[in-house]
Amino acid sequence: MGKVLIIGAGGVGRVVAHKCALNPDTFQHITLASRTLSKCEEIRNEIKDKWNREIDVARVDADNVNELIDLIHLVKPDLVINVALPYQDLTIMEACMETKVDYLDTANYEHPDTAKFEYKQQWALDEPFKERGIMGLLGSGFDPGVTNVFVAYAQKHYFDIIEYIDILDCNAGDHGYPFATNFNPEINIREVNSKGRYWENGKWIETEPMEIKMVWNYPEIGPKDSYLLYHEEEESLVKHIKGLKRIRFWMTFSESYLTHLRVLDNVGMTRIDPIEVDGCKVVPLHVLKALLPDPASLGARTKGKTNIGVVCEGIKDGKRRKIYIYNICDHQEAYKEVYSQCVSYTTGVPAMIGAKMMLERKWYQPGVWNMEQFDPDPFMEELNRQGLPWHVLEMEPNETREVE
Amino acid sequence: MGKVLIIGAGGVGRVVAHKCALNPDTFQHITLASRTLSKCEEIRNEIKDKWNREIDVARVDADNVNELIDLIHLVKPDLVINVALPYQDLTIMEACMETKVDYLDTANYEHPDTAKFEYKQQWALDEPFKERGIMGLLGSGFDPGVTNVFVAYAQKHYFDIIEYIDILDCNAGDHGYPFATNFNPEINIREVNSKGRYWENGKWIETEPMEIKMVWNYPEIGPKDSYLLYHEEEESLVKHIKGLKRIRFWMTFSESYLTHLRVLDNVGMTRIDPIEVDGCKVVPLHVLKALLPDPASLGARTKGKTNIGVVCEGIKDGKRRKIYIYNICDHQEAYKEVYSQCVSYTTGVPAMIGAKMMLERKWYQPGVWNMEQFDPDPFMEELNRQGLPWHVLEMEPNETREVE
Repeated sequence: MGKVLIIGAGGVGRVVAHKCALNPDTFQHITLASRTLSKCEEIRNEIKDKWNREIDVARVDADNVNELIDLIHLVKPDLVINVALPYQDLTIMEACMETKVDYLDTANYEHPDTAKFEYKQQWALDEPFKERGIMGLLGSGFDPGVTNVFVAYAQKHYFDIIEYIDILDCNAGDHGYPFATNFNPEINIREVNSKGRYWENGKWIETEPMEIKMVWNYPEIGPKDSYLLYHEEEESLVKHIKGLKRIRFWMTFSESYLTHLRVLDNVGMTRIDPIEVDGCKVVPLHVLKALLPDPASLGARTKGKTNIGVVCEGIKDGKRRKIYIYNICDHQEAYKEVYSQCVSYTTGVPAMIGAKMMLERKWYQPGVWNMEQFDPDPFMEELNRQGLPWHVLEMEPNETREVE
Repeated sequence: MGKVLIIGAGGVGRVVAHKCALNPDTFQHITLASRTLSKCEEIRNEIKDKWNREIDVARVDADNVNELIDLIHLVKPDLVINVALPYQDLTIMEACMETKVDYLDTANYEHPDTAKFEYKQQWALDEPFKERGIMGLLGSGFDPGVTNVFVAYAQKHYFDIIEYIDILDCNAGDHGYPFATNFNPEINIREVNSKGRYWENGKWIETEPMEIKMVWNYPEIGPKDSYLLYHEEEESLVKHIKGLKRIRFWMTFSESYLTHLRVLDNVGMTRIDPIEVDGCKVVPLHVLKALLPDPASLGARTKGKTNIGVVCEGIKDGKRRKIYIYNICDHQEAYKEVYSQCVSYTTGVPAMIGAKMMLERKWYQPGVWNMEQFDPDPFMEELNRQGLPWHVLEMEPNETREVE
């Protein structure tokens, strides 16, 4: 049915490539491109060995619009799947506009220096996309992505008005090291040092970093410390869910993980300015990176599960109602299937499903869109088929899974 | 009365030099020597400015016996006060034997590679010292040193038999940094990673590092987490206190301090093998050292007190008895007087007093001796006079200051 160009060959790119290869009716031709060709080749070889499918690979610098345009002209894809860095959303969107090719990503644009997450610059491309007759689907990962679809599904089937949304992201994986980070430790450290934010009664309310904590009892996992953070899907859901009174986002961090981050920060190991040691200039954060386990090595040894879901509370037929929709992902099962644990798996599978929705024209309309703006049902069906089954738990309106 | 040669111009050397300068009747001539002449000159200038006394300075490598001998021949001291590194006890003792000059130190010999503290090699010099008619006083700091004298004082005035000794070392100083070490962080880290050890019923019992903890209510400070460590005065007290059933040593560490050390150890920041970073080879521990506040800068900003003491329990006139003898040192008072906080002050003052005892012949006998082998009374009097006053607390035999 279609030709895709996947840009980015990290953990998520690997999952997207494998999962597209596993859906040959939809993805008849796959090209995987990245700055580092050898990473693409490694994934190509895995797919050849495991699924007996051929994919193409290419080298591209996603910061360079001209290189992107040249590659798109060469590959002639129906859709570009962007799973590169969030810094690169705008250059890839520009190349898609130039070549009139549809676009999908999993995380909103982030300026490399300011760490400010917002849709503003991508939403501004809605008219230009419409004018060119192309579609852009934003944030088709898990959170954002599936969480937005969960809310749309709740809205469609369970509620007249959704008043309260809590998005709950739990990673209960254990890699067996005293300390390691799933991805770039710089990003992890910035995450827990950033101010929190949630939306209530029409206003954004800022909190100190990690100021608000609760213990939530996650189905199939149990109680975990959960901290209020800002997360990008809140911005689009506030815009698209009418009648909303409050939305919050929670993520689990263990006490030990936070302690390690705080200590490393206290002693200056997260500093990015070079210091003089043993007659050399070295950046302390680079020393830390060199000492910590390679994030790529964590996949094979991570055990346990993730549980990401949304709790919606509101009104249906004049009565209060509360619904918890969530997915459980098992790190070892995911790794067995596509050599990536759940952190990449839960992002990559929805990226493939979003692409499938677009190529099959189940979701298709020129312009730039967020996930909750389409009919959730076909996406929800695919989640069950493609390895991310979900559960709906009807709760009592006054029931909570918050403990202590 | 006498001429002293002080070897070592670190924090303790500074205190010894100042305190000797403040006792001109005993210390008529003072020479301060160190590998780094500028450190000696700095202390000389302080003493000139503050007390209007002149001292001499010299450069010497305390690892080099011939250099030491040459310096001793040049200075012709009555006594060498060794406050250099514990690695250097044996070379300095050798130079004293060669030149027939009396010797005093504050910490027992430690092999640079094995981190094994024991008196064996120094005690073995007892006969050679006797043959040459010179005296060596070992461990004349606070612990070892004053703690041994406290025990000897308890033995002389309060007990027929001492059965139980607990030595309790609390530093409740606060330098206002989230983390810093008072001296070489490598030594701090090795300390808390070393196995603990105590003596009971004739046997040494080994514990895991920091395995045994109690909360002790220190007079004028309050309850503090205290951990059982091995400390060198236990070795000599076991030998010299007859009827002893148990001796233990406790030191306070805050939860935060231990957490920092554990995290740094977990992530590999205490490694001493070089790693490759930014095209350089650097030793992680050196990076940590470069990031942490300079230990020398802590003195001026440390507030709070130390409390070091001994609790002796035993029999007097057929009745059980318990005595707590301790000193309180205030970091800021100590700094005001001699530009060093209590960690150096409590070691340097007893070194000067030990030297005073020897020069005044109140303690004098050829051979190698530990502190508890002499009459404690004149030393205890000097402690009160020289800035380390002590208190005796009579406790009920079944009373404890252990809380929780």
